[in-house]
Amino acid sequence: MNAASRGSLYLVPNTLDFGAKSAIPPLQNVLPLGVIEIAARLPHWVAENAKTTRAFLKRVDAVVALAQPLQQIDIRELPRPQKGRAPTSPVADEWSALLAPALRGADIGLISEAGLPAVADPGAALVDAAHRARLRVVALPGPSSLLLALAASGLNGQSFAFVGYLPVEAAERGARIRELEALSRREQQTQLMIETPYRNEALLAALLAHLGATTRLAVSCGLTLDGAFSRTDTVAGWKAAPTGLPADLPVVFSLLAA
Amino acid sequence: MNAASRGSLYLVPNTLDFGAKSAIPPLQNVLPLGVIEIAARLPHWVAENAKTTRAFLKRVDAVVALAQPLQQIDIRELPRPQKGRAPTSPVADEWSALLAPALRGADIGLISEAGLPAVADPGAALVDAAHRARLRVVALPGPSSLLLALAASGLNGQSFAFVGYLPVEAAERGARIRELEALSRREQQTQLMIETPYRNEALLAALLAHLGATTRLAVSCGLTLDGAFSRTDTVAGWKAAPTGLPADLPVVFSLLAA
Repeated sequence: MNAASRGSLYLVPNTLDFGAKSAIPPLQNVLPLGVIEIAARLPHWVAENAKTTRAFLKRVDAVVALAQPLQQIDIRELPRPQKGRAPTSPVADEWSALLAPALRGADIGLISEAGLPAVADPGAALVDAAHRARLRVVALPGPSSLLLALAASGLNGQSFAFVGYLPVEAAERGARIRELEALSRREQQTQLMIETPYRNEALLAALLAHLGATTRLAVSCGLTLDGAFSRTDTVAGWKAAPTGLPADLPVVFSLLAA
Repeated sequence: MNAASRGSLYLVPNTLDFGAKSAIPPLQNVLPLGVIEIAARLPHWVAENAKTTRAFLKRVDAVVALAQPLQQIDIRELPRPQKGRAPTSPVADEWSALLAPALRGADIGLISEAGLPAVADPGAALVDAAHRARLRVVALPGPSSLLLALAASGLNGQSFAFVGYLPVEAAERGARIRELEALSRREQQTQLMIETPYRNEALLAALLAHLGATTRLAVSCGLTLDGAFSRTDTVAGWKAAPTGLPADLPVVFSLLAA
């Protein structure tokens, strides 16, 4: 079968309002119309969660009518990540089954719970499998909380790293914070990290406890939502005038050592 | 003056078709309507280039009528980055002048030549100055070639770094490539880099010459444009079946060592 008769894997961005309790912004505030149009015609989906994907498709349908009834759209869930397995290590059979519709010529959408799929979520392994199967992969533009937070931080956007979650245990966490600060100072590289929302305040406290007074610390909260805010200040400035963080919204933390 | 009577600094994403010779996609393929609506009402802009910003505003006007005639919109250019000056070091006077409209209560848009402002471009210093002046900073969602390339690569999206440009001189470049590969292996961190388009082929050749055979190398070219493609393969796979790169379109290179 030649490439032309195969389907493509579309990486469809989701909104950033997953779990938000405030007013949900209209889909067209955060997704381009062209992306909504593509989402409306895809017959197959791979998702972290089928239920929230159906809710997303209902929002799509309110802007651009779905090409087929929602009940007829095929939605499959990604395998749960297993501890100790590298995020992109291939497990051929699982991924082949998910990609089978594309091998037969139908397009597939990959979507995550928030933002761009395959960034800070388990979808990257499916994209990797698609490349191994020589399928066309098309990333569609949309919101990324990491990049919006980086832009809003005013910290170095010419060199930056996303390091995911920090250790939860206090001593390990403190050591990791000091390691990231040293790395940031040496490379002049902004370091970005995230936390489970109910631990936002605990991570902020740990950062303020372990970082040097002149290191700049940025926090972006609830981006694209009502009440969103971004604050960048020195650690000394944060300590002098604290800002509370919500326990139910995602926050992106960024730091740049002077 | 209290915060409520001040304007905000909006970070307005641009399209990714800067300099493209192929068909330019409609604005609504890449920018959310809500973002276009905000862009249409902003009276002040700070930009890398006033001429291309006027061209952008004409495209905005074709979707949502500008709130005032284009000739009356105030567009100022960012100071050129000076060699040897850190990208985010503040030069208070220059930035204060650019932010003056917001101190008087008017909103300002910051835009770059492509993608999100303040990411891989000189705008971050203005954002930093806005935080120092306690102005509200609002990052609006749109396309980022770096994050689209990362998503399309299928490489590790849970830990990644953007390192900008590599050295041009051959020996330094080779050393830097091997350093990034070692870092990627140690941290299991995807490393992303960019190049001036006419040197795309030269960078690809250098990566293939210096990386190990099992390292995965991803290339994303012309994302959001006609003819866009993303390829991920091992270095051995690239060598066995080379893909030519265009000399006139931006390419994002990503690598992950096994």
